[in-house]
Amino acid sequence: MALQHARPGEAIDIRPLGARLREVATHALLKTHALEVIRVVLAAGEAQPRHRVAGELTLLCIEGQVQVEAGALSCRLDAGHLLLLPALAEHSVRALADASLLLTLQLPPGAPGSASSTV
Amino acid sequence: MALQHARPGEAIDIRPLGARLREVATHALLKTHALEVIRVVLAAGEAQPRHRVAGELTLLCIEGQVQVEAGALSCRLDAGHLLLLPALAEHSVRALADASLLLTLQLPPGAPGSASSTV
Repeated sequence: MALQHARPGEAIDIRPLGARLREVATHALLKTHALEVIRVVLAAGEAQPRHRVAGELTLLCIEGQVQVEAGALSCRLDAGHLLLLPALAEHSVRALADASLLLTLQLPPGAPGSASSTV
Repeated sequence: MALQHARPGEAIDIRPLGARLREVATHALLKTHALEVIRVVLAAGEAQPRHRVAGELTLLCIEGQVQVEAGALSCRLDAGHLLLLPALAEHSVRALADASLLLTLQLPPGAPGSASSTV
């Protein structure tokens, strides 16, 4: 999917994908020097394997249900639930049902570029 | 309202407040050295007057409808719409209907503490 980053002042529709979910891949919504926002799309049973990113992040479950594992933490997120993960925390995300999530990444000054290739 | 900041690994319920909206005030959901997340609650007709914050921010309309003005920009946000505003952009938010929003603030290194007193 071609990435069309939104610009400041441009509203982005992040409503649930519903029946279209399986036609949509994970994609970046916007990226600046300080923030990156990505819609993560996972079909039931799919997972993002264990990885970590340089900055802090929040994960907001837009639809569906996922299980997040990070170190000793194991947390289920349903639609409308938000989770903070600290910088450099190794974590994995597994979809218990078709799910999409809003991933907001804080990009520390001087950190290497996009984290979207790792999520 | 007492502020109970969530800790990393603790899921936060940010589903629409619905009928409870007018009983809930704007409140911080979490704050670290790099990110602050606030639920902004505005009854129809209420507004956050023009202000600015040090970092970049995203505004996600959880429910209701707001009008955001920032410089020459005027943007209406409905539920499920996300908007990025650059650092130091003077902006105001006015509720066109009872609304709650997820405000995610990036806190630049060395910036003065909480921005929640200004939003």
